Amino acid sequence: MSIIKQGIYHPLTETTAIELALNLSIFSEDAKLSCNEIGDGNLNLVFHVVDTHAGKSIIIKQALPYAKVVGESWPLTINRAKIEADALKTFGRIAPDFVPAVYYTDDVLAVTVMEDLSHLLIARTGFINGETYPLISTHLGEYLAKTLFYTSDYGLGPTRKKEQVQQFINPELCKITEDLIFTDPYYDAETNEFEEGLRPFVVALWRDEELQFHVNVLKKTFLTDAEVLLHGDLHTGSIFANNSETKVIDPEFAFYGPAGFDIGQVFANLLFQVIVNDKKRDLFVEHIETVWDVFKNTFTILWETQNKEVLAQSTSFISYNLSKFFADALGFAGCELIRRTIGLAHVADLDGIKDEQTRLAAKRKSLELGGILIKQRKNIKDLGEFIEIVKGKIN
Amino acid sequence: MSIIKQGIYHPLTETTAIELALNLSIFSEDAKLSCNEIGDGNLNLVFHVVDTHAGKSIIIKQALPYAKVVGESWPLTINRAKIEADALKTFGRIAPDFVPAVYYTDDVLAVTVMEDLSHLLIARTGFINGETYPLISTHLGEYLAKTLFYTSDYGLGPTRKKEQVQQFINPELCKITEDLIFTDPYYDAETNEFEEGLRPFVVALWRDEELQFHVNVLKKTFLTDAEVLLHGDLHTGSIFANNSETKVIDPEFAFYGPAGFDIGQVFANLLFQVIVNDKKRDLFVEHIETVWDVFKNTFTILWETQNKEVLAQSTSFISYNLSKFFADALGFAGCELIRRTIGLAHVADLDGIKDEQTRLAAKRKSLELGGILIKQRKNIKDLGEFIEIVKGKIN
Repeated sequence: MSIIKQGIYHPLTETTAIELALNLSIFSEDAKLSCNEIGDGNLNLVFHVVDTHAGKSIIIKQALPYAKVVGESWPLTINRAKIEADALKTFGRIAPDFVPAVYYTDDVLAVTVMEDLSHLLIARTGFINGETYPLISTHLGEYLAKTLFYTSDYGLGPTRKKEQVQQFINPELCKITEDLIFTDPYYDAETNEFEEGLRPFVVALWRDEELQFHVNVLKKTFLTDAEVLLHGDLHTGSIFANNSETKVIDPEFAFYGPAGFDIGQVFANLLFQVIVNDKKRDLFVEHIETVWDVFKNTFTILWETQNKEVLAQSTSFISYNLSKFFADALGFAGCELIRRTIGLAHVADLDGIKDEQTRLAAKRKSLELGGILIKQRKNIKDLGEFIEIVKGKIN
Repeated sequence: MSIIKQGIYHPLTETTAIELALNLSIFSEDAKLSCNEIGDGNLNLVFHVVDTHAGKSIIIKQALPYAKVVGESWPLTINRAKIEADALKTFGRIAPDFVPAVYYTDDVLAVTVMEDLSHLLIARTGFINGETYPLISTHLGEYLAKTLFYTSDYGLGPTRKKEQVQQFINPELCKITEDLIFTDPYYDAETNEFEEGLRPFVVALWRDEELQFHVNVLKKTFLTDAEVLLHGDLHTGSIFANNSETKVIDPEFAFYGPAGFDIGQVFANLLFQVIVNDKKRDLFVEHIETVWDVFKNTFTILWETQNKEVLAQSTSFISYNLSKFFADALGFAGCELIRRTIGLAHVADLDGIKDEQTRLAAKRKSLELGGILIKQRKNIKDLGEFIEIVKGKIN
């Protein structure tokens, strides 16, 4: 007798997750499956279902009808599971090497059954543990070039692109970004979280009208520039890696927005390691350089060979696009540096530093570099100048 | 017995249009209605239904499943009738003085029943007949300010705005604009129509790489900048007017795009009169100035008093937005000048000039001014400089 209720949302248990797995014909009918719920319980249930005998395993991810971030909780529709599943499938078609395979989705249960990546580690955790993942930046550059080109008007054609814009309208998750990245850190909002030692710097930031202007412009870019299908939350906590593989997970924030947003979040989350990881600083600087170089070269080849807009294939117009993406990426990276330092959701790269003075110094660097990238993004002409500014601020 | 078939699309006749009108309780049950089909048959049927006795009348507009432009015909979904009806209702709530009232809509029949405006004249026809409509520019400035503010992220809030973006995804009609305004005029496309006397100028335009670059940028702005709900086809043929009233009709091209597009089409279609109407040139220049001044002042007041984004209410950020709208508007006006001169759909302002040399001279001015506006749009700092360039080119 089935214990999964039909046609109505309810949270799975380890028992019903096994039942679901057996129904999908992924495992043999008589497989002995074990199951562990391994999620952090903030947004989703994550079941790890294993057939030890056959050496097979899957992940069943189920959206919960609320979000918890640092103790706060608010309702959230489970429709985001559909956005995430659709995005995984879309990105999976475009860049299969860098996206987990999806085996099954159920919009009513808000469930996605996908490839088990437990042989990999969350990149942020790996970095903090001393890993450097030599191929991660090449992989991310290629992932970004492919996903951002093939979902654009130029890779997809304007008609299909508009259908995807419609499919990926995502007001709820975008609102989280709009508030937590572009609004709350820039005034004395209740959601902000920062150490008292940073208060003078935070108060100065709240009074910085030039900074507020640029953040307004960047927020408008986020709100209105429907250039490409973004992952929308591409920090190092959304990336599984080891020394040979890289997989981008959790695209529930996916929507059509400015290409520079995904690139900027990658930049910023690598910059945290540049800031905190004295011994391997140069390796993380190289990672940033590689992300951009591989992105730029791969995107340019795709633009020149796969472009659906014949008249758009001029050198001057691809340069214009790459310059816009780069400036946007620097600005969004700056916003990410600031919000991860003083906003609601922090990063372990900074918060995990035990010594208070070292930690405060790192956070001040993050705030300062963030402000510079936001204000100077259009004057920083190329990667070399960007890296020079980073090194000047960090060393 | 009803002769209107239920639940299935079919073109109305004058008889079934009367039946529909009687069913709507707009007229008394025993009213004697007369009906004339007054459309041009290119895209829609337009029935004028009149109760002479009661002095009442309405318009019944029905989309046809094809489009005809200058002899060419291609299939077109009747879904555009829903977009048009939704847009009329949305704009009608925001700017009721300048939009026909909608009495009834039927998505299956692709029918909109609306206010009869036959006491007004199509503005383009009026202008060509010597009218100047003294209030039209004040009205259009106010219409533009209200519709472009209240449908933006700042007037509507980002969540409602995203729902409207989804509602007004309009691939088919946008494709017509993308092709006929931004693509075909810039190479030797079959759709182009121009007099042999213009050929040297047209060939030079096709070879102008600087122009192509800027048109690529403007097309990208049209494709990706989801700033506001646009009318999308706001030329003087979509405006009914007399000396006291102005009504904007036919928003079937409505979609979320760059605010400057509607403004630019208004500029360009007034510029045609500046180019051709020697005797009333100054009045049409003043109309252009008034459109921008009223738009700018009204938009600024709305921004400062009705803004849903508290942090966005700085002087620097409103200036940034107005500058972007202005530059975009000049560029889009340039595109409209060029495509109405050498593209598929012409304007009677130019084509109606009987003397060949005068007509060719006017068309050359349109092409030249178009190119200047496209290339120089970001360097033209304000209205005064724009008008100076116009006068320099026309006189």
